[in-house]
Amino acid sequence: MKFNNGKVNEIQIAYIGGGSMYWAKNLIADLALDEQLSGTIRLYDLDYDKARNNEKLGNSVSEYAEAKSKWTYKAYPTLKEALSGCDFVFISILPGTFNEMASDVHEPEKYGIYQAVGDTTGPGGLVRALRTIPMYVEIAGAIERFSPDAWVFNYTNPMTLCTRTLYEVFPGIKALGCCHEIFGTQGLLIRMLRDMEGIEGVHRDDVKVNVLGINHFTWIDQATYQHLDLLPMYRKFVDKYYESGFEHNKDAWMTNTYTAANRVKFDLFRRYGIIAAAGDRHLAEFMPPWYMKDPDTVRYWKFGLTTVESRVEKHIATELYYRKLLSGEEKLPLKASGEEEVRQLKGLIGLQPFVTNVNIPNVGQMKGIPLGAVVETNALFSSSSLRPVYAGELPLAVNNLVLQHTVNQELILKAALQKDKALAFNAFVNDPLVNIDVNQAETLFDQMLQNTKAYLPGWNI
Amino acid sequence: MKFNNGKVNEIQIAYIGGGSMYWAKNLIADLALDEQLSGTIRLYDLDYDKARNNEKLGNSVSEYAEAKSKWTYKAYPTLKEALSGCDFVFISILPGTFNEMASDVHEPEKYGIYQAVGDTTGPGGLVRALRTIPMYVEIAGAIERFSPDAWVFNYTNPMTLCTRTLYEVFPGIKALGCCHEIFGTQGLLIRMLRDMEGIEGVHRDDVKVNVLGINHFTWIDQATYQHLDLLPMYRKFVDKYYESGFEHNKDAWMTNTYTAANRVKFDLFRRYGIIAAAGDRHLAEFMPPWYMKDPDTVRYWKFGLTTVESRVEKHIATELYYRKLLSGEEKLPLKASGEEEVRQLKGLIGLQPFVTNVNIPNVGQMKGIPLGAVVETNALFSSSSLRPVYAGELPLAVNNLVLQHTVNQELILKAALQKDKALAFNAFVNDPLVNIDVNQAETLFDQMLQNTKAYLPGWNI
Amino acid sequence: MKFNNGKVNEIQIAYIGGGSMYWAKNLIADLALDEQLSGTIRLYDLDYDKARNNEKLGNSVSEYAEAKSKWTYKAYPTLKEALSGCDFVFISILPGTFNEMASDVHEPEKYGIYQAVGDTTGPGGLVRALRTIPMYVEIAGAIERFSPDAWVFNYTNPMTLCTRTLYEVFPGIKALGCCHEIFGTQGLLIRMLRDMEGIEGVHRDDVKVNVLGINHFTWIDQATYQHLDLLPMYRKFVDKYYESGFEHNKDAWMTNTYTAANRVKFDLFRRYGIIAAAGDRHLAEFMPPWYMKDPDTVRYWKFGLTTVESRVEKHIATELYYRKLLSGEEKLPLKASGEEEVRQLKGLIGLQPFVTNVNIPNVGQMKGIPLGAVVETNALFSSSSLRPVYAGELPLAVNNLVLQHTVNQELILKAALQKDKALAFNAFVNDPLVNIDVNQAETLFDQMLQNTKAYLPGWNI
Amino acid sequence: MKFNNGKVNEIQIAYIGGGSMYWAKNLIADLALDEQLSGTIRLYDLDYDKARNNEKLGNSVSEYAEAKSKWTYKAYPTLKEALSGCDFVFISILPGTFNEMASDVHEPEKYGIYQAVGDTTGPGGLVRALRTIPMYVEIAGAIERFSPDAWVFNYTNPMTLCTRTLYEVFPGIKALGCCHEIFGTQGLLIRMLRDMEGIEGVHRDDVKVNVLGINHFTWIDQATYQHLDLLPMYRKFVDKYYESGFEHNKDAWMTNTYTAANRVKFDLFRRYGIIAAAGDRHLAEFMPPWYMKDPDTVRYWKFGLTTVESRVEKHIATELYYRKLLSGEEKLPLKASGEEEVRQLKGLIGLQPFVTNVNIPNVGQMKGIPLGAVVETNALFSSSSLRPVYAGELPLAVNNLVLQHTVNQELILKAALQKDKALAFNAFVNDPLVNIDVNQAETLFDQMLQNTKAYLPGWNI
Repeated sequence: MKFNNGKVNEIQIAYIGGGSMYWAKNLIADLALDEQLSGTIRLYDLDYDKARNNEKLGNSVSEYAEAKSKWTYKAYPTLKEALSGCDFVFISILPGTFNEMASDVHEPEKYGIYQAVGDTTGPGGLVRALRTIPMYVEIAGAIERFSPDAWVFNYTNPMTLCTRTLYEVFPGIKALGCCHEIFGTQGLLIRMLRDMEGIEGVHRDDVKVNVLGINHFTWIDQATYQHLDLLPMYRKFVDKYYESGFEHNKDAWMTNTYTAANRVKFDLFRRYGIIAAAGDRHLAEFMPPWYMKDPDTVRYWKFGLTTVESRVEKHIATELYYRKLLSGEEKLPLKASGEEEVRQLKGLIGLQPFVTNVNIPNVGQMKGIPLGAVVETNALFSSSSLRPVYAGELPLAVNNLVLQHTVNQELILKAALQKDKALAFNAFVNDPLVNIDVNQAETLFDQMLQNTKAYLPGWNI
Repeated sequence: MKFNNGKVNEIQIAYIGGGSMYWAKNLIADLALDEQLSGTIRLYDLDYDKARNNEKLGNSVSEYAEAKSKWTYKAYPTLKEALSGCDFVFISILPGTFNEMASDVHEPEKYGIYQAVGDTTGPGGLVRALRTIPMYVEIAGAIERFSPDAWVFNYTNPMTLCTRTLYEVFPGIKALGCCHEIFGTQGLLIRMLRDMEGIEGVHRDDVKVNVLGINHFTWIDQATYQHLDLLPMYRKFVDKYYESGFEHNKDAWMTNTYTAANRVKFDLFRRYGIIAAAGDRHLAEFMPPWYMKDPDTVRYWKFGLTTVESRVEKHIATELYYRKLLSGEEKLPLKASGEEEVRQLKGLIGLQPFVTNVNIPNVGQMKGIPLGAVVETNALFSSSSLRPVYAGELPLAVNNLVLQHTVNQELILKAALQKDKALAFNAFVNDPLVNIDVNQAETLFDQMLQNTKAYLPGWNI
Repeated sequence: MKFNNGKVNEIQIAYIGGGSMYWAKNLIADLALDEQLSGTIRLYDLDYDKARNNEKLGNSVSEYAEAKSKWTYKAYPTLKEALSGCDFVFISILPGTFNEMASDVHEPEKYGIYQAVGDTTGPGGLVRALRTIPMYVEIAGAIERFSPDAWVFNYTNPMTLCTRTLYEVFPGIKALGCCHEIFGTQGLLIRMLRDMEGIEGVHRDDVKVNVLGINHFTWIDQATYQHLDLLPMYRKFVDKYYESGFEHNKDAWMTNTYTAANRVKFDLFRRYGIIAAAGDRHLAEFMPPWYMKDPDTVRYWKFGLTTVESRVEKHIATELYYRKLLSGEEKLPLKASGEEEVRQLKGLIGLQPFVTNVNIPNVGQMKGIPLGAVVETNALFSSSSLRPVYAGELPLAVNNLVLQHTVNQELILKAALQKDKALAFNAFVNDPLVNIDVNQAETLFDQMLQNTKAYLPGWNI
Repeated sequence: MKFNNGKVNEIQIAYIGGGSMYWAKNLIADLALDEQLSGTIRLYDLDYDKARNNEKLGNSVSEYAEAKSKWTYKAYPTLKEALSGCDFVFISILPGTFNEMASDVHEPEKYGIYQAVGDTTGPGGLVRALRTIPMYVEIAGAIERFSPDAWVFNYTNPMTLCTRTLYEVFPGIKALGCCHEIFGTQGLLIRMLRDMEGIEGVHRDDVKVNVLGINHFTWIDQATYQHLDLLPMYRKFVDKYYESGFEHNKDAWMTNTYTAANRVKFDLFRRYGIIAAAGDRHLAEFMPPWYMKDPDTVRYWKFGLTTVESRVEKHIATELYYRKLLSGEEKLPLKASGEEEVRQLKGLIGLQPFVTNVNIPNVGQMKGIPLGAVVETNALFSSSSLRPVYAGELPLAVNNLVLQHTVNQELILKAALQKDKALAFNAFVNDPLVNIDVNQAETLFDQMLQNTKAYLPGWNI
């Protein structure tokens, strides 16, 4: 990195999973929109050709007149080349194909287990973790060898276990897991301020929240806007909209299976007294099947079960659009993604310190959860420094729920590292969504492992 | 206490629940059989007349020629009188009547939830805890005022929460919870030594076990007889008897609902690799309803669901027999109960140190479980001193199971102390046996609270 | 508090020690210079007349044309009246008179023990703590009764033990200890940037430091200016000025006994590898008498031993000036004190979050030091919220030094609360400055207690 | 090992330092006196010929008619051969020669620092540790490779750091440090029972003590004989003999520099309220030079400063005697050494469980001291199992003293492992005996390192 008149040049960023058609577009646009930073994005992907595509796309965007900075994109065929000498590493990979994803999400439905997303927890999240962890073992090892001092940003799900694996393999790593679910809840609080108090134009940064929990099962026990305590207001807001739900776009949940009417969030508030802070689809998966007993129950709570079929359709459309971008038939619109990666880069570089929520190991910032577990709490980004802000402790009833998942995730990690099917099954039946007969659970588990077998080298299955 | 030529006289023991017709008989016999100790048993019971009965019975036994020591039994109408000046306190009470017990055990059956005992965990154990905790709050307060230096032995279930409440209310208390379930597992290991190796005449003391867990959900990760490691032998033993079960008296479980064929124990060993060390009826209650989905499943696993009706019948017979004892028509047979209370007294008095398992707060003897939680591990009884022996840590998969119950018990305690129904329900639905629809769970919970309402003063229900 | 168009009115601040002639002037000026805040300062002092003086002075300043906000000052005769209904409490008291201070600082000189300040550690700091702690016991009790929700800012020394006492007596208190010594080190780093790199105009806020330690014995293990790592630069800076020292005003230390040439700081850096971050006079007191063996040694290290005589002289001058202020003969110049109290108020009110160093209990932000001990680390000030930022752990050699003082402070606290002279003496001989014969130490200790006897009610001395 | 009719044969014990003329004799006699155990002692020593001598001596003793068991002694030229296949390892080495020992003990005297033993703490203990730790690094590595499952008994000083190094290098080691100092204090309590109460014939086993601390700086906070609490009795005993001291053999301390009149122990009791439980010569070394300011002070406290000259004389006599043993001119008297190694073997083998004090890592048995530090507390020896008994926490004033040494030992370990002279000096000046000018301390330290240079390979000195 070179510093020059308030600008920072020659930043080296390795991007693992750099053949992506999704997250890459966001990154390219966000970087192009910032005028302080520039450098090289070193794209690495198992599919080298896809990395080459993004090399082409990224460099073409740098040519746009409206691009405020000119980044260089370059594909590398090996992790070693991509990582050596980089300042930052971004990891955003897809572990497996849609086939494995279809098994994760839909195989359990045969046993009456429904999942809205299936990438974090529940039977689907667990099996996805089993095949992702070996990939992260490899990545962590490569970072230790080739770029041990780099800051590593993880974007892959299951977020907690990916980040946890990085630290397990290379304890000296400087890694963080980044997720925007909290931003969505801040958005809901902004809409609440408008709805309940007529306060307009509030920026997300001005809604201060204390975050505790684990990724996709995060909670907010303190929320303020200026001097206003938002929790009492939220209680009234929940009372007002408990039955109807409260949506950005009315009834969007009926057609867009990625959205929800926040009824799960409201119900959790009534039961536990603090704000559950992730999308309803994610939250529902961490609880017993209260909200997902069957499709009717899901509809009652007004959220969508995202099918893999819908993901495939979306993918086909994206591929089409992406080809147009590559061919130059369409131009990538340069608008901010809403993610914080550029801001986080700037914080760590020393340009502008700030506080936001991240997934990092618990060094004591979250009481009630074991040290070393990856938790999601606020942290201070400052020059060469990422330091958790003390978050305190969840109410006992909520902490018990989070803790159950935390310790089960540790068991999943152990099972994956040891390639131990019996341990993995011990974790499987501990998941609150798996409340079926134990023998049926075993049949399901066996089938799911078979379906993902190609990604479980060394397992005895 | 007075020491005289190796004997200890004038020991003062308060016995709360001293109107019992069951445990009292054991105590009276055990004390009469020991020649070193003598003193006074100060009987206290809510039903003073029953305490008077035991006064009469106890004193009559002291007159037996075969009684090796002469204890005095005396009923006291108040806790203050019973406790003041005592060296030891025994607590063994029945929280509520058979009516409440029937609700604890059988109301959940209407929703398909079966319980073999219903006094420790599960919906029954939880509700029993809610009505027991206030009684223990009162007892702990009285001990703090009237006999703060006494050693307090608890025998009431739910063992963990009773003991935990004593420490919560009076942190300086010197209390321990005593249970014989581990002895049963030691007995099984002795029978295994005979069956597998032809070794006869092994005394329970010679089977050394390392105990970890919580009462009725305890585990043994190290067991030796002399130099023999019993775990590999147990693995073969389980293989041999996994299907048939292994019983003291063949098929006893079919007629005696207090017994079991150890198949649950064997299945848990196969799944988790260490020895589950309590009766199958207790163990099954801590797991999801794998072993108690319905009566057929219970029969498959060869253990009994103890009905309250059977307890009532037993009670009537006991009452009849007890009247004969009181009238002198029958004589109490002086034979050792198999319990350890006399030995523990001697240890604490300084006569003979020894190591056994007890329920006391975790000061670090059990890693992986929060400090302060009541756990069951070995401890060294020595003069005026009860010190936990370091037990180490359960395998992760087992620790997760125990931890889930431990933190839920903390939640039950909090709910009981705060008389908070919502918190109590949060705990209720966390129990692995309660894997029914949340709305049905709420209906069941409401009904169970109604049924036990008389014992929940101050609750808003 | 009332919020109105970005301003906050009717803030209620109780000021204990509100009869001060020193810190009060700073506060009055700082408040008058801020245009966002206004309200009432409720002055309480053991000497009510002095509080009345500040009432008069403060109100007169509010009349100044250049005062940007109009605060009301009002003296109250009782803690109860001053505290009831306040939002914030400031505590800045002088525990004892110059007589006791003279004993603290100079009595030990008779035994060859020199102290540069004598208000924090060493024999003087210990005895000062013994007489201050009972005052803080009273204050903490009053806050618990009359203003339990107020934020409490402590400014009195010994800072650590005053703050620690507040939490010991009222664990729910929201208290912080504020000290500007770190600012001085940031100032030194700014001057280093100018001297070594020719960088001008750096604002203190832009020098980011990670703070660890205890008040007046704080350390900086990470310091950056923008992207620059200041530690390697500091190493060269120390090499350059190790012998000569580096001063704001050359040779000021020779005439002004409140200043120093930073040679102690430089020597500690050479020995321990990180930046000692307090004035040399304070730092030297926490070490064995390396830097204060005798006055010649002190001169060698180029710092001053502040005599109580010089304090008395300063006091007389201040008194004179203060009378002129009171009479209106002179006007209080409105310039910023360099303290952060107004900024901290704004942070807690929700106007502008920021991060700075404070003294608060260790909830885990500083590894290697027991939980509950008061440490000095960074914390995030945000709306109704003060949350430590994780500071990590000192290098082992430094941590050992800090830990020795931390555990000795706990012993001093215990001795003071129990009024136990033997315990206090145990702590006394543990202090590294007390490296004299134990019998002489006892004589000295006895004499020092006698000298401060009027402030040790209930002690058996 | 083979078990046969209550006997255990073919036990394999590696003895590192097996060329010893001292401890070997004890071991040979103790083993010969036990009729249950037999097997092979595999002698390893840097001086192979000396190991051969003990081979000869040991085998000759096995021929004695009065030897109850026949052990085989065999010298091995490499650690690999000695360790491979062994069940137990004993380590008792002399790190360096009398020359290095003379420097450890007497070089500091030139600066007014006196040491009674100089092998544990103080400047001598520290330098001895620096040269011993690399030897233990090698030993630990060899054990990990060649006998990872063996139980390892350490007898070398500095005990704490030797044991700590074993665990640092090979965390899975099953090592314990054994020391008889506590037995001496139990002996004193037995003599007290006779002196104060006329109770005769008490066996050491019947004096139950709770042990806390670090080797040679251990404390007893609970001591009982049957039901008698010995602490109040000890208080009176101290009052009676505070001035005169209390000795086994009157005025022995005047001629035998290995003995003491217990006055240091009595003074520590008066100051701290619990029993210091090691020889006075050891205890005095952990405190500031209160008891060893100069030889007169030492005489006042009635204990000896053991000179290296006296050790050399003793050595010459021993050598002479040893040659007679070897030649058969004299016979080794078979009497019990008073050590516990045979009993500990039997405990771990599964013959007879028992509780005694050992030096092992703190897993929580001693509150107030960091986890992982090696502490001396009671532990339960049982079949294949050594488990600490919870010891609780020292009174704060004592804990502070122990903690200071514990954390300094960690620093010494780090310095030794990193061969870092600056770190070692940081530790050196932290020792309470080193209360001299820091520059003088540096000169002394440099000289001591020079004197022991041959044993500090890789150091930059």
